[in-house]
Amino acid sequence: MRHARRELWFEVPQRRAYLNITPEVEVFVRESGIIEGLRLVNPMHITAAVYVNDDEQGLIADIDDWLERLAPHEPVAQDRHNNGEDNADAHLKRQLMAPRSCSRSPTAGSTSAPGSRSSTPSSTAADASACCSRRSASSR
Amino acid sequence: MRHARRELWFEVPQRRAYLNITPEVEVFVRESGIIEGLRLVNPMHITAAVYVNDDEQGLIADIDDWLERLAPHEPVAQDRHNNGEDNADAHLKRQLMAPRSCSRSPTAGSTSAPGSRSSTPSSTAADASACCSRRSASSR
Amino acid sequence: MRHARRELWFEVPQRRAYLNITPEVEVFVRESGIIEGLRLVNPMHITAAVYVNDDEQGLIADIDDWLERLAPHEPVAQDRHNNGEDNADAHLKRQLMAPRSCSRSPTAGSTSAPGSRSSTPSSTAADASACCSRRSASSR
Repeated sequence: MRHARRELWFEVPQRRAYLNITPEVEVFVRESGIIEGLRLVNPMHITAAVYVNDDEQGLIADIDDWLERLAPHEPVAQDRHNNGEDNADAHLKRQLMAPRSCSRSPTAGSTSAPGSRSSTPSSTAADASACCSRRSASSR
Repeated sequence: MRHARRELWFEVPQRRAYLNITPEVEVFVRESGIIEGLRLVNPMHITAAVYVNDDEQGLIADIDDWLERLAPHEPVAQDRHNNGEDNADAHLKRQLMAPRSCSRSPTAGSTSAPGSRSSTPSSTAADASACCSRRSASSR
Repeated sequence: MRHARRELWFEVPQRRAYLNITPEVEVFVRESGIIEGLRLVNPMHITAAVYVNDDEQGLIADIDDWLERLAPHEPVAQDRHNNGEDNADAHLKRQLMAPRSCSRSPTAGSTSAPGSRSSTPSSTAADASACCSRRSASSR
């Protein structure tokens, strides 16, 4: 069975950032030549998350406020993980974002045998986004 | 390799509803004829979630209260995404529910080679449920 | 296509415990002889979760406090699921932990054809942990 893998790396200057990585994922899938299959987008840092939702600035502001309300950064001293680090909240925020995305290329038919091909282009209902903290801005 | 895909659509009158979709998923798997494999149940709306937990009315009431406590609907004006819409909370509630389900058909043995078949029927430890908001009651 | 499956069972005396199960998963993958593929680690109890994060005692204490703050055990009578049981909070805590882990064995190259093999050993960016409640301390 064919498979493909690519490392995407991101660097952000802020403590937190929300990046729409759907175009890069789509380019990779197209270049892989794979028509049918599972697409797993896994964040490789434990203060980062890959999630699927609207790339709309109002919603991103709501998500950011909400993450800060449920897993606040301050006071830094409240967290026992912050022993030489100050990113305990980012480990918790990651858990809230249900960190990985798995989807399947849609097909024209409902069941197909090995070797069958679909001409339906891949489409996503929403954007795959990476929620990065400053300390985990890269993905591999 | 064989694969199968089916779109399940749901319409609910309420703003939120909890549907047990395990029977429909099981019918689909049976009809696909696939004995071994991964089963991905992905919600195709970004205010919906597929989760695995007890289909017990007390628990569902607890989950519903809890979602409302952590990501309240009111006041609608608090959310910047609610610009012509009023469902920002549903986008957040979706994230809390860890939105997709992935499982594997159990087998009799622990390791098997291509072409091997198991006669053990598929069983799930719990029910797969779809948590739908009114605006995203369909799944495809 | 080859596949392999193993049941891992855990018993813990406490109401909640955080177990690092990465070594057992790695042993299983090595013994399976599978070099390339997807690795799904699914908790088979609905008050347990498998998550990927740091196995650091400060962080685990922070996670435990945080789970208790967002989905408190007491008062037990607040939850309608606690009708002969007292673990409604564990069902909610499970949802917060984004319950399953899916990852892929890394490869040396980015795309490979069927039958290709990578000599790069499997490595994980972080530890896979099982968050168990007393009533659901086993995984199968």
